[in-house]
Amino acid sequence: MLLKAEIIAVGTELILGQIPNTNAQVISQALQEIGIDVYYHICVGDNKERLKEVFQTSFKRSDIIILTGGLGPTEDDLTKETVAEYLNLPLKLDENSLNRMKDYFKKTGRQIANNNYKQALIPEGAIAIENKNGTAPGVLLKYGDKIIVMLPGPPREMEPMLKETVIPYLSKMSTTTIFSRILKFYGIGESDLEERLKDLIDSQTVPTIAPLVGRAGEVTIRLTAKAGSKEEAQKIIRPTEEEIIKRTREYFYGFDNDSVEEIVAKLLIKLNKTISIAESCTGGLLAHKLTNIPGISASFDRGIISYSNRSKHELLNVKNETLENYGAVSEETAKEMAEGIRLSSGTDIGVSVTGIAGPDGGTAEKPVGLVYIGYADSSTVCAQRHIFSGRRIDIKERSANSALHLVRKMLQKLENPSNR
Amino acid sequence: MLLKAEIIAVGTELILGQIPNTNAQVISQALQEIGIDVYYHICVGDNKERLKEVFQTSFKRSDIIILTGGLGPTEDDLTKETVAEYLNLPLKLDENSLNRMKDYFKKTGRQIANNNYKQALIPEGAIAIENKNGTAPGVLLKYGDKIIVMLPGPPREMEPMLKETVIPYLSKMSTTTIFSRILKFYGIGESDLEERLKDLIDSQTVPTIAPLVGRAGEVTIRLTAKAGSKEEAQKIIRPTEEEIIKRTREYFYGFDNDSVEEIVAKLLIKLNKTISIAESCTGGLLAHKLTNIPGISASFDRGIISYSNRSKHELLNVKNETLENYGAVSEETAKEMAEGIRLSSGTDIGVSVTGIAGPDGGTAEKPVGLVYIGYADSSTVCAQRHIFSGRRIDIKERSANSALHLVRKMLQKLENPSNR
Repeated sequence: MLLKAEIIAVGTELILGQIPNTNAQVISQALQEIGIDVYYHICVGDNKERLKEVFQTSFKRSDIIILTGGLGPTEDDLTKETVAEYLNLPLKLDENSLNRMKDYFKKTGRQIANNNYKQALIPEGAIAIENKNGTAPGVLLKYGDKIIVMLPGPPREMEPMLKETVIPYLSKMSTTTIFSRILKFYGIGESDLEERLKDLIDSQTVPTIAPLVGRAGEVTIRLTAKAGSKEEAQKIIRPTEEEIIKRTREYFYGFDNDSVEEIVAKLLIKLNKTISIAESCTGGLLAHKLTNIPGISASFDRGIISYSNRSKHELLNVKNETLENYGAVSEETAKEMAEGIRLSSGTDIGVSVTGIAGPDGGTAEKPVGLVYIGYADSSTVCAQRHIFSGRRIDIKERSANSALHLVRKMLQKLENPSNR
Repeated sequence: MLLKAEIIAVGTELILGQIPNTNAQVISQALQEIGIDVYYHICVGDNKERLKEVFQTSFKRSDIIILTGGLGPTEDDLTKETVAEYLNLPLKLDENSLNRMKDYFKKTGRQIANNNYKQALIPEGAIAIENKNGTAPGVLLKYGDKIIVMLPGPPREMEPMLKETVIPYLSKMSTTTIFSRILKFYGIGESDLEERLKDLIDSQTVPTIAPLVGRAGEVTIRLTAKAGSKEEAQKIIRPTEEEIIKRTREYFYGFDNDSVEEIVAKLLIKLNKTISIAESCTGGLLAHKLTNIPGISASFDRGIISYSNRSKHELLNVKNETLENYGAVSEETAKEMAEGIRLSSGTDIGVSVTGIAGPDGGTAEKPVGLVYIGYADSSTVCAQRHIFSGRRIDIKERSANSALHLVRKMLQKLENPSNR
C-alpha cells in the first residue's frame, strides 16, 4: 500500500513571512527516502478555528499527518489541544516528559515556569517523543488507520526527533522505497554539465536524472529510482551513476550529504597531515567550516584572521614590500600568507584567502569579488585568482568554498599521485 | 473591508523537498505591508486533480488567491489550465505576451519552441503581467469579488512581477495597514519573559503581543497593530512597546532586523574602539559573524583561532601552567586568552571563547556544551561560564552569540556608564 502524507506547519510567524517553512522541506526529503509520498504542505497561523479546519481536511485525505510548531508553553501554542479536541481525546500528563523537562531546566540552570507544565500533556493513547534540545516533547499518535505526528517548530529540536524516532517508526509501515543518489560537482556550470549528459537526460526513464543548482558554485545531479528495496533501487541507479562520473571525473567530488569540508577533514586525518589557515576577506568562515567537522582538532592547529595589513605582517611574515608593491589582495600576498602560516605554525599545509568582499573597497583594477586563494606545503606554493559576484556574504561563502576545494584537490593528489 | 489572502505554490519539486518554498515567505511579507492578511500557505504537486481540489477550497474561503509555479511550457505545467477550467473560462492567446516572448528568445539567442506558445495563453478577461526575466507571463484575474493572481515559480521571475505589478494593484484595494514591531531579548527564556508580561499579554487587544523563540538563545516579541496608516499603527504600538522595554530593560537589545553583530559593529565604530578575537571552540564563527558587517575593518584588527594548546600559548601567551592546572576550557584560560589577544594586537578590547563543542571530548566535570567567554579591556578582565545544549553547530552558534552579547553589554556601559 502506498502511504500518503501531508505536513501542516503551525505558526503565525510563518504565514506572516517572518521565517521560512524549512521544516516542510526537511520532512519531505526524509519521507521520500522511505517511500512515503507527500502530497501537500500547509501553513496556518496560531488560530484554533483555522487549524481545526485544516486538520480536518488533512485527516480525511491522508494516511499520515505531520504537524510542526505550536507545542510551546504559551497560550498561542495550541496544536495538541486542537488535534485532541478534534479527535475527542483528553490530554493527559506524561510523567516521563515532565521529568525530562525538569532535568532540562536543571541542566541549563533555569527554573521551570508554571506554563511549561502544559508542554508535558499529550493526547490519551499517544506516545511522547523525547526532545533532547528543548522542553516540548513530540507526539506520535496512532488513531484508527491514521498516524498523527506532532513535532516542535524549531529545527534544532524537530530534526533529531524526526530522524531518531519518527522516520524509523514510519519506515516500518512502508513497502516501497524511493532511493535517490546525489552526485556533486565543483568548477563546472549547470548548463555545461547538462550538455555533457544531454543524451542521458533526454532518454531518461529509470532512474530519473535531475540537475540542480547547488550553493556557492556547486552543481548537483539527483538520480532517483523506486523499487521494493533500497538495494534494488541502488542497482537500478548504479550504471547511470558510473556513466555520469566517467564523463565528468574532473569536476565530480562527492555523493549525497558529502560536504567539501568533511572530505577535506577526512583526507587530512587519513593522510595524517596538519593544516593551518590564514584568512582575510572570509573573516573566519573558512576555519568555521572546517571546524564544523568533529575530530578536526587532530589536524587543524590554528587559524589567523589577518584583517589589517599590520596583522598580515606581524603574524604571517608577509613582507611589507609585498603589501606595498602588490597590495593585500594579490597573488603574491596570498602565497606569502599561506607559506607564512605554514612555517609559523609548523603544520604540513598552509592555506590562505585574501580578497575584497565588498560592498565597498573595490576599484576598477581590483573590483569587489576579486579573491586570491593561496596554498603551501613542503613542495608547492601556489595561488588561484577568482572573481565572485553577489553580496558580501555570498563572496565570503564562495571564497571559503574555493579554498576548501583547492585543499581537497591537493590532498587527493597526495593520496593518489597517478590519478590527477 | 479586511481582505484575506492565501498562497498556493504548485510544483512537485516543492513537495518532494527538493527546493524550499521561498516564494510564500516573500509574498506574505509584501502583502502584510499593504494590510492584506495571509491565512494559509499551500504547496501541491503538478497534479491537476489535487490542484483543482486545493484551488476550490481556497477560492471559497479567501478574497485573494496567489498561485506560483506551473506556468512553464511543459505538459506538467497546468496552473492556468486548471484555474480556467474550474472557473469555466476559455484560454485565449495574448498577442502582447507572445511578442514579448519572441523578443525574449531573440535576445537570448535561442529559438522559440512549439511548447512555448501555450505560455502566451491566458484566461478570458484576465490581464497578462509582463515577465522581464523569463518567458511565462503572469496572470491577474478579477472574478466576481475575488482576485486570482498567477506568477511563475522561479523567484527571480516572480519577485519583480510581484513588486512592480501585483502589489501596486492590490494596495489600491486595501484600506488598512498592518504594522509590526519586533523587540529582541537575550539572556531570558521565553516563559520567563512571558511571565513578566503576563498581565499585558492576557489583556491584549491592540496591539497584539506575540512572543517567539528566536535563534541561538534569543527571544523576540512581536507587537502588531492594524490602522489606516503606518504612522497611526506606530502610535498604537508605542505605549505597549515602552512598557515592555521598561520591564525587561536588562534583557532587551534591539528592534526588527537588528542583529547583535551589527549592534556591536556600530558601537565599536561609534566609540572608536578596536577589537581583536581569540576563539577556540567557535573555530572562526565569532569573527565570521562580526566580519559580515560592512565597514568593520575600521575596528576589527585580527582574530586568532587557537585550536591547539600550543597555539594558545604561542600566540596568546596563555601560561603553560594555566593550561596544566585549569585546562584549556576554564575561566582562567578564557581570561588569559582575552587579555593575550588584546595586548599582542594592541587593540582596545579583546574577547575570547573556549569550550567543548562536542560531540566528543566531554567529561563528567567538563561536559560537552561547557563554554567560557572572556573579555578584556584596559580596566576589566572577566569571564562568563555557560552550559549550552544541542549539536556541535548549535553550541558554536550559542557561544559566538554569547560572546557578541557580552561585548555589546560592555560597550553599552562605556557608551552610557550611568545606565547599566
